[in-house]
Amino acid sequence: MITGKNYIGNRLSGEGVSSHRTVDPKLNIENPTAFMEATEDEINEAVDLAAIAFQTFKKTSGEQRADFLNAIADEILALEDELIQMFCLESGLPEGRAVGERGRTVFQLRSFAELVSNEEWRNNVIDKAIPDRQPLPKPDIRKTSIPLGPVVVFAASNFPLAFSTAGGDTASALASGCPVIVKSHAMHSGTGELVASAIIKAAERTGMPNGVFSNITGRGRTVGTALVKHPKVKAVGFTGSISGGRALYNLAAQREEPIPVFAEMGSINPVVITPQAIAARSEEIASTYAGSITLGTGQFCTNPGLILTVESEGVEDFVEDLAAKTVAIDPQCMLHPSIKSGFVQNENIVTGQKGVSVVGRLEESIDPNYAPSQINATSGADFLANPKMHTEVFGPFSLVVKSKDEEELIAVINSLEGQLTGTILAEESELENLEGIIDALQNRVGRIIFNGVPTGVEVTGAMTHGGPYPACSDSRFTAVGLGAIKRWVRPFSYQNWPKELLPDALKD
Amino acid sequence: MITGKNYIGNRLSGEGVSSHRTVDPKLNIENPTAFMEATEDEINEAVDLAAIAFQTFKKTSGEQRADFLNAIADEILALEDELIQMFCLESGLPEGRAVGERGRTVFQLRSFAELVSNEEWRNNVIDKAIPDRQPLPKPDIRKTSIPLGPVVVFAASNFPLAFSTAGGDTASALASGCPVIVKSHAMHSGTGELVASAIIKAAERTGMPNGVFSNITGRGRTVGTALVKHPKVKAVGFTGSISGGRALYNLAAQREEPIPVFAEMGSINPVVITPQAIAARSEEIASTYAGSITLGTGQFCTNPGLILTVESEGVEDFVEDLAAKTVAIDPQCMLHPSIKSGFVQNENIVTGQKGVSVVGRLEESIDPNYAPSQINATSGADFLANPKMHTEVFGPFSLVVKSKDEEELIAVINSLEGQLTGTILAEESELENLEGIIDALQNRVGRIIFNGVPTGVEVTGAMTHGGPYPACSDSRFTAVGLGAIKRWVRPFSYQNWPKELLPDALKD
Repeated sequence: MITGKNYIGNRLSGEGVSSHRTVDPKLNIENPTAFMEATEDEINEAVDLAAIAFQTFKKTSGEQRADFLNAIADEILALEDELIQMFCLESGLPEGRAVGERGRTVFQLRSFAELVSNEEWRNNVIDKAIPDRQPLPKPDIRKTSIPLGPVVVFAASNFPLAFSTAGGDTASALASGCPVIVKSHAMHSGTGELVASAIIKAAERTGMPNGVFSNITGRGRTVGTALVKHPKVKAVGFTGSISGGRALYNLAAQREEPIPVFAEMGSINPVVITPQAIAARSEEIASTYAGSITLGTGQFCTNPGLILTVESEGVEDFVEDLAAKTVAIDPQCMLHPSIKSGFVQNENIVTGQKGVSVVGRLEESIDPNYAPSQINATSGADFLANPKMHTEVFGPFSLVVKSKDEEELIAVINSLEGQLTGTILAEESELENLEGIIDALQNRVGRIIFNGVPTGVEVTGAMTHGGPYPACSDSRFTAVGLGAIKRWVRPFSYQNWPKELLPDALKD
Repeated sequence: MITGKNYIGNRLSGEGVSSHRTVDPKLNIENPTAFMEATEDEINEAVDLAAIAFQTFKKTSGEQRADFLNAIADEILALEDELIQMFCLESGLPEGRAVGERGRTVFQLRSFAELVSNEEWRNNVIDKAIPDRQPLPKPDIRKTSIPLGPVVVFAASNFPLAFSTAGGDTASALASGCPVIVKSHAMHSGTGELVASAIIKAAERTGMPNGVFSNITGRGRTVGTALVKHPKVKAVGFTGSISGGRALYNLAAQREEPIPVFAEMGSINPVVITPQAIAARSEEIASTYAGSITLGTGQFCTNPGLILTVESEGVEDFVEDLAAKTVAIDPQCMLHPSIKSGFVQNENIVTGQKGVSVVGRLEESIDPNYAPSQINATSGADFLANPKMHTEVFGPFSLVVKSKDEEELIAVINSLEGQLTGTILAEESELENLEGIIDALQNRVGRIIFNGVPTGVEVTGAMTHGGPYPACSDSRFTAVGLGAIKRWVRPFSYQNWPKELLPDALKD
């Protein structure tokens, strides 16, 4: 049962006077529970508890933290249908997605548990002493990785489970030994509270210190701002809009002690389709991409929002076919009303630009928060002349840019901001001619895909979910996959340190 | 022979109207060469060349970049005595130090050459496809590290060779595949130009693209500001003062596309000496620390500026002895007049605080840029009450803080800002009682040393030269040692990528 209160460490607390309600986007009505916005005192208490908890949590063994993470996974599964129903109620997403995303969340928790069950992830390095080195003896130096301290995680609107309360940021930060304070998402605060209750149960069950986790509620930016500015907070994880992520980055950079913010933000994920690929398998590509563009109502950061090709026979038919197939897919509900209004607003920005034509758009009457999917087209020259066409339209939307030749297509890629992904659809016979396109894409993206779709992000050691700004605020890290833990740790060296005081993994 | 011009790529260029001269600090007179401040056009050309060079340089093999780095080392050695004399003339440092620092510089270049001669440094990860995974096939994903793009390196005042033109930042950035634009240090521009000429020769000899390296001259902040704000610059390396490093960090954070700045800044490097250690070996510790405090005229970022102990029998005698031994060491010349004036200014700040007593200070008359070494003392209570006592006094200076008990000593550590190093001098018999002190120090530093001195920074895989702010601007990286290359690269993943197009190291 949900209470509408914050978890300040293990304690439910609702001392505030402001509150908000989540929305059932399908019915377009507010849900019953009032969620109490955290007060300044509650926020300070949560951070103070986290800072105290850090001193013991950082010393837990990898096995202890693995037990904690696995217990969180177990407790999330133990929420059973209550969690699934709340997820669907607050997000408008179907039950299959809820179950799938819960599976991903549990998988992430267990993956990080496995990662830290031994000490290899710390990239330990041992350089032994060379006492007779000339002109000076070489000391014994041993390096490991240690956690930064309390981390604030902002829950993402589009992954109420996998990138929210116990999502990838939380799992990787807890795995590293950092306490986590989640700023719950105001539009799925009920889902957030349920998951928070699971984390608290798991923390108590596995003997973790009070304050290792808190769940803070609030609408608007007041609560998040207070958290990021708090001197005892040492890092921030965020998934969301460019404006939101940049605002947090700026706050953190302006602190007396600046702290790292890993914000995964905007991406329109360019997809290059060669004329040969269109000639060989136009219909198959159109089908696949109609599916990718509308998957999850287009509400993925890896949604293919930009399709780049070169004028040639077959291209017009391909675009018409892609539009027809996209529009033919049943419209779906968006996550909440402000996602829908953002979709409409940004769709109007792009389609309002000179040279953009709407190739297909669902015109039938739909319920308020459902999204009319849409395919548009423009020329390379028009795109190059107008950066407003780069606007991310978060939803089932894609813009096809037809360049006059490969040189113009490469110029289009070079004109783009940083992106999470780039994709190339081409024939095997063209491989040796793709170097210019690949080079240009590599400069702009964190992951490059061949003959596939950008949607679907594997949680694996080899994944990069990041990229040049504004795909994320620091391209040197990834938000997804086991590498995500590196965001929350720093190197630390022991010099001539007594063996009995070294961490076990640094002993001979 | 030096010209006073900039290297804009391979071309010597001096189109500016402003110029500055370096200073012979021993004689306190200006040296003859006028160094031409780079113009906006020259700066833009250097960055444009770097951006073009990046497109080919990033594709060079590790062996090619290793050859380049080794050739730089060879060309630096080929400068022979001209370089050594210029180094001494512009820095006031003795010839032995010049030769030693050149050795370190060459060693760093060769170490990074060795590091990148194979591809292990990229932390490649291969996750093979699992086509029959349920519910969805797992794609083939392969991750590597790729360079960020043009890097601006600010030469450090206190290491005219090892942390300047071809120093650790430059060596690690070039090793990673990033072109480098050095902002030469205005007080050793001659040394900088000589080393730049060696890099340019090496680049030409090993077939590197024009623009892979430029050397930009300027006094004041105009040139550096223009470089950091340039949209084609993708990262910054800096070693110097907190105010300088923070200014660059702020500039980079305020860009439309923020870029990483690794600034290694202030540190007073706390040294904890237990009463037992003083009781057992007071004189030995005093001798060792008098040497460490005055080494290089105290002009090291790891200089032990703060000595922490607990009131006990023997402490007063130890402090007197330390002061006597420190003052007995011949005064040395500081790097340049503004280092000397900064030393005097900050020394007056610390010694002007209530409760600080000067235990020993060289009072004999010395030449203008020589430094009077100095040992001071205060109580834990006074130190805790007054953050001005934390001021870094860059030079042969240390403040001894005598706490009333271990609890107060730990409070003193907790009151400190981030530091590069922390040191504990203790007896083996005390090891099991040190946990509180070690925990507190670990929260504040990047490297912890037992029964040694913080000065001396090994260039090795296990080194951490960094730490919480303001020791550096991002504690997740190190400025020294092989890990320094990680500052300049980002993860990049290939998904379902044709084998023939994968980098060799990512093939099966």
